[in-house]
Amino acid sequence: MASSFGERVKITVFGQSHSAAIGAVIDGLPAGETLDIQAISDFMARRAPGRNPGDTARREPDIPRILSGLVNDTTCGAPLCAVIENTDTRSQDYDALRDIPRPGHADFPISVKHGGYADKRGGGHTSGRLTAPLCFAGAICAQILEKRGIEICAIATKTGDIETAKAVGDSVGGIVECTATGLPVGLGEPMFGGVENRLAAALFGIPAVRGVEFGAGFAAADMQGSQNNDAYFVQNGEIRTRTNHHGGVLGGLTTGMPLVVRVAIKPTPSISRQQESVDLVARESVELRIGGRHDACIVPRAVPVVEAVVACVLLDLMEIER
Amino acid sequence: MASSFGERVKITVFGQSHSAAIGAVIDGLPAGETLDIQAISDFMARRAPGRNPGDTARREPDIPRILSGLVNDTTCGAPLCAVIENTDTRSQDYDALRDIPRPGHADFPISVKHGGYADKRGGGHTSGRLTAPLCFAGAICAQILEKRGIEICAIATKTGDIETAKAVGDSVGGIVECTATGLPVGLGEPMFGGVENRLAAALFGIPAVRGVEFGAGFAAADMQGSQNNDAYFVQNGEIRTRTNHHGGVLGGLTTGMPLVVRVAIKPTPSISRQQESVDLVARESVELRIGGRHDACIVPRAVPVVEAVVACVLLDLMEIER
Amino acid sequence: MASSFGERVKITVFGQSHSAAIGAVIDGLPAGETLDIQAISDFMARRAPGRNPGDTARREPDIPRILSGLVNDTTCGAPLCAVIENTDTRSQDYDALRDIPRPGHADFPISVKHGGYADKRGGGHTSGRLTAPLCFAGAICAQILEKRGIEICAIATKTGDIETAKAVGDSVGGIVECTATGLPVGLGEPMFGGVENRLAAALFGIPAVRGVEFGAGFAAADMQGSQNNDAYFVQNGEIRTRTNHHGGVLGGLTTGMPLVVRVAIKPTPSISRQQESVDLVARESVELRIGGRHDACIVPRAVPVVEAVVACVLLDLMEIER
Amino acid sequence: MASSFGERVKITVFGQSHSAAIGAVIDGLPAGETLDIQAISDFMARRAPGRNPGDTARREPDIPRILSGLVNDTTCGAPLCAVIENTDTRSQDYDALRDIPRPGHADFPISVKHGGYADKRGGGHTSGRLTAPLCFAGAICAQILEKRGIEICAIATKTGDIETAKAVGDSVGGIVECTATGLPVGLGEPMFGGVENRLAAALFGIPAVRGVEFGAGFAAADMQGSQNNDAYFVQNGEIRTRTNHHGGVLGGLTTGMPLVVRVAIKPTPSISRQQESVDLVARESVELRIGGRHDACIVPRAVPVVEAVVACVLLDLMEIER
Repeated sequence: MASSFGERVKITVFGQSHSAAIGAVIDGLPAGETLDIQAISDFMARRAPGRNPGDTARREPDIPRILSGLVNDTTCGAPLCAVIENTDTRSQDYDALRDIPRPGHADFPISVKHGGYADKRGGGHTSGRLTAPLCFAGAICAQILEKRGIEICAIATKTGDIETAKAVGDSVGGIVECTATGLPVGLGEPMFGGVENRLAAALFGIPAVRGVEFGAGFAAADMQGSQNNDAYFVQNGEIRTRTNHHGGVLGGLTTGMPLVVRVAIKPTPSISRQQESVDLVARESVELRIGGRHDACIVPRAVPVVEAVVACVLLDLMEIER
Repeated sequence: MASSFGERVKITVFGQSHSAAIGAVIDGLPAGETLDIQAISDFMARRAPGRNPGDTARREPDIPRILSGLVNDTTCGAPLCAVIENTDTRSQDYDALRDIPRPGHADFPISVKHGGYADKRGGGHTSGRLTAPLCFAGAICAQILEKRGIEICAIATKTGDIETAKAVGDSVGGIVECTATGLPVGLGEPMFGGVENRLAAALFGIPAVRGVEFGAGFAAADMQGSQNNDAYFVQNGEIRTRTNHHGGVLGGLTTGMPLVVRVAIKPTPSISRQQESVDLVARESVELRIGGRHDACIVPRAVPVVEAVVACVLLDLMEIER
Repeated sequence: MASSFGERVKITVFGQSHSAAIGAVIDGLPAGETLDIQAISDFMARRAPGRNPGDTARREPDIPRILSGLVNDTTCGAPLCAVIENTDTRSQDYDALRDIPRPGHADFPISVKHGGYADKRGGGHTSGRLTAPLCFAGAICAQILEKRGIEICAIATKTGDIETAKAVGDSVGGIVECTATGLPVGLGEPMFGGVENRLAAALFGIPAVRGVEFGAGFAAADMQGSQNNDAYFVQNGEIRTRTNHHGGVLGGLTTGMPLVVRVAIKPTPSISRQQESVDLVARESVELRIGGRHDACIVPRAVPVVEAVVACVLLDLMEIER
Repeated sequence: MASSFGERVKITVFGQSHSAAIGAVIDGLPAGETLDIQAISDFMARRAPGRNPGDTARREPDIPRILSGLVNDTTCGAPLCAVIENTDTRSQDYDALRDIPRPGHADFPISVKHGGYADKRGGGHTSGRLTAPLCFAGAICAQILEKRGIEICAIATKTGDIETAKAVGDSVGGIVECTATGLPVGLGEPMFGGVENRLAAALFGIPAVRGVEFGAGFAAADMQGSQNNDAYFVQNGEIRTRTNHHGGVLGGLTTGMPLVVRVAIKPTPSISRQQESVDLVARESVELRIGGRHDACIVPRAVPVVEAVVACVLLDLMEIER
């Protein structure tokens, strides 16, 4: 479905940028896991705007209220629902955009799809704001994985020149690379249920992701088999590979080497520079200037989001095959 | 599940490289579609080995026998099952590989996963041979889409130097780009049910795919918003974009512009050059030389496979929202 | 998953009897449906306790707060989430029951399943209280169906002698029959995706349901084919049947005759009479007297719940095949 | 989907009564299970016609050819596909029925649904013939369960007077009760993923099933809580219940007591007595006499089918929670 992913640990995200609240339901968490609530907040704070020079000026305390699924901070086997109130919304910023789709956003196709009924204020349900509940869910999954020796860490390996872009009302993109260590060998399923299939399907749910690759990824297209193949050897009785071009996953299954996935983040489509658009009603060209508060670069804020989604997918796989 | 994809039009693939037969079940095809059986064979022939200089010497007539789902070559609403017999198998080629995982193949993790019971002959269920039933399914879906004005076409945009690699017992990879035209605006769902999520999940089911990107893809990481955003304009009353960096899909939804998806294909892992591996039982290093018949480059044969998978996913989406 | 049902219109229910709140997420509602909020409350009031002589003394205002999915009371295509606060909880009533499973409840298997971490206060996630968000979801689905000419109506066709049972601290069960009219012919899918399969799977999610039958149901076991078969005839150009032993559904597909489904409701397991149970820790027999506030008969309150679940399943089917 | 059920062990059934062949794909079987092929045949023979006085005269050897998923009769983790050729088909028997729906069959709604393209010969995809591959799948699942100490056994607890019905060209129905012993405590999930939900959804996929109940089932509607509640006691350190009105399942979860599920089978709708029907094209009443070869009572043949479906669902649940 549109707003859910996962098979045994299933995350459902709800809310629009300017609805009363946003949130997530996590079904299938193993019972008996005591959560560190402060650590969840800390994780979410990494995504909150205001920490990086290119961030939006929108300020949200983003304190999730957990409604269910916990007894004394411990999972009880029932679905965990958390709600985050939307407080700092300025819907009037979007009034002018009702019939004028912003280039690079989903405004145009969503208008056609929902026949004018879509909530386009602030990007509606497709807003980057929905990554807040994703981070909430991911923080929980990451905690549980960590107790099992699985660590997930993402970094931005490429970011455009933020301050320059900001100065001219433009934006830049980048690349986020996420690594997961401590995974058992053989996690995942062949063909369509593999680690790559599930991760890619979930990662493309993060707004602005335009590409997903594993290990050498697109660079493998330029390599020879003798280079790209990772030689096996035995180290302390464990089978390992000398290189990790395969990024820890072969044919859908983990190999025990670090899982390496990389996502391409496009430059934020909301820019203050003048753009060419159309009036959907009048069917004529218009010049567009987008007001509101925007990120000049969401790559830094996307880093914890990628970690979060990877954590959700990996915990799901661990629970499928526990 | 491991061997299925799709929601309303669901493809299930079965068989191993050296089992009695391989095949596919397609459930959810619309009733009343008269199929051009010759065109299916022609489509499958594009994938069959022996047409390109880097192809394996394995020869399979690959004539699918349709067991169900058709009456007078017309879909009747019941699942369509087709079976392709495996005839030219040489399992003895693989006896030596039982306990020695081939670098770059799923042999090692699948051995751990299935505790030695996996059918590793010829790659078993993860063999590229399973792309034959995928092409069968895709040929049918593409036919049905074509009648609705949707055309799918893939090409290899990059291929390594095949003849040189072949001469030294090595292999090369490449990139396949697939375009779909004629799609309606608004196909797909936001967040996790979008065109990108579904296509990526299915495309990573093709052996050797290491990356999937849409439109500008990873190149978008180097662009500014003002470059990457595609300006809207009106042409003959239709909303179009002047450029197509978004590859025809924004936020999970089609925009009416050509859908552009690109997949990275790694060099075939089966090479005849000597490689370093391990004996899984003795837990010691061994030198490995792989016999058998292999492709020096599967990129040309992957082209119709990518088309096939894209066709399956797009017909599924069309049926979901018909 | 445990707490979700539906394919295109997917209902996810969350909360425990004594958690901070309970609620539902409805994903896949068609956009552009203006909801009558008062009618939702009226529907939910039919389920609220205090209207029938056998109801529990627990009082909950049960006013759902809609967090997302609506703009000006109109669906916008994004998931609709509603939250109902739990206010009148008395967890101390359940302290004595921690290690003593109540006969007829899921206490025992859920203790084993979740290793003591289950929230058993008030029945936790398996409490009848979770039928409140089900009614919320069903009220919305029923409204949308009604606009399409589909009416759903359930009645209690059998109820035990409530006042007598109440007097002796006992409880009674009954049967709820639900009818849906106005359905198109051919809704549903053969084999495992039929109207019966989907309705039964969802209806067994209502606590205390022990049987589901369609049309003549179990009585058909005593009939002859010539009796049970419903003769076709033409009425005003429409194909109809003279009798309706098939309950409006044949082989998974609707026939255009009224859909008739019947569910058996067992007597409420919570009774105040002394019962024989065991101490799960001490592994010894104990006599159990359950305090707290209970329904002597939940059949009247189950009537709208059955309607609600039927509405959810039928709207889902309508959206699948729209 | 229409023709699949199961989450981790997924059964897909294909074929029509008069297609070239029918069969099943079983995905998700645990690897390393050595199958007793003769026992599968023996199981399927219990369903084959010709053993009971009310059976159809159609004769099919029904020898499944296993195409994939096994190496030396041992599951290898890849999907297992088996094909059964259709040999004794007499499609001409059905020519007269093309536009005249048989009362009690799905002919009418399936004609509307598939716009005349449905394969109605012999009942097409909704024919009882499709229970042959179900029995094949169930025989395998039952074998695997048996090794884990889980035994499944069904019996006909009620059957109409077959010989009398046969003499007058009529048919009778009955009730099949299935018991499963040896199940662990806590199998299943609360609400919509429970044992009851999954079993009911699958069992309604068997043609002619009109009702499904667990334990006391519909009889519970006439009981008081003090009667229907099953008292707990300790026997040899195990928690058991003195009675089994709950049929081994409470709130979706197994209790360790024998699982008891009962299905109502309607009288075979194909009878040779004259019936009232309509001509769908001319839209006028016609008298119908059905030729062909039919069962006067399918209850005896349904017994192994019910066992098979229960086995498939229980193995699926065991694999989900292994």
